[in-house]
Amino acid sequence: MELRAGKNKIDKDVFEELCSAIGRECIFDSIEERERYSFDAANLKSMPDLVIMPRSTEQVSGILSIANKHNIPNCTRGVVLPGGAVPIRGGIVLDLKNMNRIEELNARDLTITVEPGVVMKDLQDEVVRSRLFYPPESGSEILSTIGERVAECTGGMTGMKYGVTRDYVLALEIVLPDGSVINAGRKTLKSVAGYDLTRFFVGSEGTLGVFTKITLKLLPMPEKTGTVMSCFKDIEGALDATDTILSKNHLNPRALEFADKTCIDAVREADNGKIPEEAEALLLIDVDGNEKNVTNDISRIDAICRENSALNILITHADEERNRLWDIRNSIFPSPSKIASVKYDEDVTVQRSKVRDVLKRIYELSNTYSLEMSVSGKIGEGHIHLNVTGNSADADDVSVHSLVSQILNSVESNGGTNISGLAPHESEIMKDLKRMFDPKGIMNPGKIII
Amino acid sequence: MELRAGKNKIDKDVFEELCSAIGRECIFDSIEERERYSFDAANLKSMPDLVIMPRSTEQVSGILSIANKHNIPNCTRGVVLPGGAVPIRGGIVLDLKNMNRIEELNARDLTITVEPGVVMKDLQDEVVRSRLFYPPESGSEILSTIGERVAECTGGMTGMKYGVTRDYVLALEIVLPDGSVINAGRKTLKSVAGYDLTRFFVGSEGTLGVFTKITLKLLPMPEKTGTVMSCFKDIEGALDATDTILSKNHLNPRALEFADKTCIDAVREADNGKIPEEAEALLLIDVDGNEKNVTNDISRIDAICRENSALNILITHADEERNRLWDIRNSIFPSPSKIASVKYDEDVTVQRSKVRDVLKRIYELSNTYSLEMSVSGKIGEGHIHLNVTGNSADADDVSVHSLVSQILNSVESNGGTNISGLAPHESEIMKDLKRMFDPKGIMNPGKIII
Repeated sequence: MELRAGKNKIDKDVFEELCSAIGRECIFDSIEERERYSFDAANLKSMPDLVIMPRSTEQVSGILSIANKHNIPNCTRGVVLPGGAVPIRGGIVLDLKNMNRIEELNARDLTITVEPGVVMKDLQDEVVRSRLFYPPESGSEILSTIGERVAECTGGMTGMKYGVTRDYVLALEIVLPDGSVINAGRKTLKSVAGYDLTRFFVGSEGTLGVFTKITLKLLPMPEKTGTVMSCFKDIEGALDATDTILSKNHLNPRALEFADKTCIDAVREADNGKIPEEAEALLLIDVDGNEKNVTNDISRIDAICRENSALNILITHADEERNRLWDIRNSIFPSPSKIASVKYDEDVTVQRSKVRDVLKRIYELSNTYSLEMSVSGKIGEGHIHLNVTGNSADADDVSVHSLVSQILNSVESNGGTNISGLAPHESEIMKDLKRMFDPKGIMNPGKIII
Repeated sequence: MELRAGKNKIDKDVFEELCSAIGRECIFDSIEERERYSFDAANLKSMPDLVIMPRSTEQVSGILSIANKHNIPNCTRGVVLPGGAVPIRGGIVLDLKNMNRIEELNARDLTITVEPGVVMKDLQDEVVRSRLFYPPESGSEILSTIGERVAECTGGMTGMKYGVTRDYVLALEIVLPDGSVINAGRKTLKSVAGYDLTRFFVGSEGTLGVFTKITLKLLPMPEKTGTVMSCFKDIEGALDATDTILSKNHLNPRALEFADKTCIDAVREADNGKIPEEAEALLLIDVDGNEKNVTNDISRIDAICRENSALNILITHADEERNRLWDIRNSIFPSPSKIASVKYDEDVTVQRSKVRDVLKRIYELSNTYSLEMSVSGKIGEGHIHLNVTGNSADADDVSVHSLVSQILNSVESNGGTNISGLAPHESEIMKDLKRMFDPKGIMNPGKIII
């Protein structure tokens, strides 16, 4: 798919202006370099005119003020391109990978201040070295930067207990589209001056400004983490166990992941025989806290799974074994673009109590259309990740589209959200906000505000 | 202090329009009623022209659209008037006390949806009945409503472990100044559509719109809570113990309150001899979790306090005794307006690691000016509550003002915030945002955006 209209050319004068403002060595204009930044994981494709790799806030400011003057669209990307970072109207792609300094980890104040290009794994390693904890982890720490995470307000596997990225962003240095630099928030845990610009910018997907410095809240590292992997002979068993763990027993696991048979079968080679053939569903559950707490919670979860027709249960407190179990989970979600048969890939969120009804509807529709689907997700948070794998012969685009739109209807009628869920008046407000911060519409155009 | 310019009169036609739109019985115009709504806890005073007690979103919408048409300022208040709710330019005061329905507590989804006039105690009682937990508690649950809490984004005693009100607001129904109604956020834990209006409105102090429905996230109720009250023979001991508990041992107490000698002396009658005469500082610490966890953490805190020259330590796991200890703490913060000698009353926040330096500076300045001060606060979050009690003869306004501005300088040079801490460019952005939502400036004028 080629999206770019190509009307925003960068002429020689603008190119010279950029070079003299930030240095030729940060600017890349070869076809090869531009090609590398022209696609994303969902196979969208659009060529940027220039790729720029700034090294400082001042350079980002310089780039944006020139882009703003000449109406040149720009978008910012991290390590890999998520859907949000394809330059669908050409212009400049900012790659912040050289802005990857960890400026300060303050163990007493439980804060860390970093540049946006820091890769999540480097951030997590630094945090762990100080026996601290940054909860929003995604399972693909080498493939994303903190800048992306803040721009997307990602959740991560620990979301039910520990919240999402937004809950950890204390302060942002932001370059606005006109090149001016603002500081939103403070390094203190409470910030009381004015409106909350910090959280407003979190999740704005680069459509309002570029983050050049990020201060995050950290937590003390939990003493211990333990993991339970339980296989069930039907989906009902896994859902019943989840309900009992969360609603009846009020346990508060660090992570709880569900996967159905299609997901399980896809990773069967990786599991070393840990998952029985007849397993229709799987729960992978992490519990953290102090040692006694973890032991206690795990034995309660073990008992609950047994009462709900678990086929087999693996329990471990050792980090190495825990990682092996989570590797199985992580192999369920390879980059969808690598699976030729994936026709559709979507995340939806409903209230926890609606998960059962929505899953039921998904499998009904899957049957009706004879299209194979795989479903997984953090169901304790109401998060459902679905793929139409399209292994069957009928997987034409029309029926996939029809299936997906019926699923999204079901999600919506169950009070859930998907990316298109905005009422007209709210949508108008979003547009007004976008216009206020980015009157020329140069920041990641076509995203959030269409 | 009389602030009101009084230029916004409500004439007979507007009065009639309001009556026919929402009903005469909701509108109060007697001097007595208006007088009741003319002051706040800080003794600001300004008479509203009308007091209106709407019963529904539709009525709030009707009132605002009429106010907007005729440029009539309005402000919304809860049970008592905090500083934010004095009608400094007259106009309408909205009292939402009749919008106090608890619409739905959903124990499976861990959410509660309420109207803004619900008194915190009623909300907490409802939550506790379902064995659930809404963490942001303030110690004055009968004196505030959830609407105020969301408008002010209050913290509360559990903030260090559990965050502030913002972290619990999932969705808001908001009446905008033109009378239109929007729904920000969703009842799902993750909301992915557009910019985060929900958190943007939290803490906006009624300057952008009126909340008419609030959905909050709840947590499972912790199995157990225990309390330690430790008195110290010097402030250093209390600060050292705090550091050891939080930074060295990475314990994560539910609450940690500090109070100095002036505070302690002020409540000595209430303490029943629990606090030794020579105590210079006090820590009141709550720990929650499962039973073993709490027992374990409390014995570690006990040991840490002993190692830091604690004079005596009280420990309890019984709710009744816990409440008695917290009553002592709560009596430290009576409504400042009731203490004739309080000259100044301020909350400041610095990074946790700067608390010691700022406290040192506060006491130095207190000596220099011969002005008595009392200091308390959630120092683990860097929160410092200070009063200039002005018992000494020199407590004239000039020296109090000079003392306070030097303290605020010290807070600022230590990277902290106080209510006036906004850079000019950020301040401009706040004004633009205010103008966008409230072009006529009728919503709680004079607050946040001056």
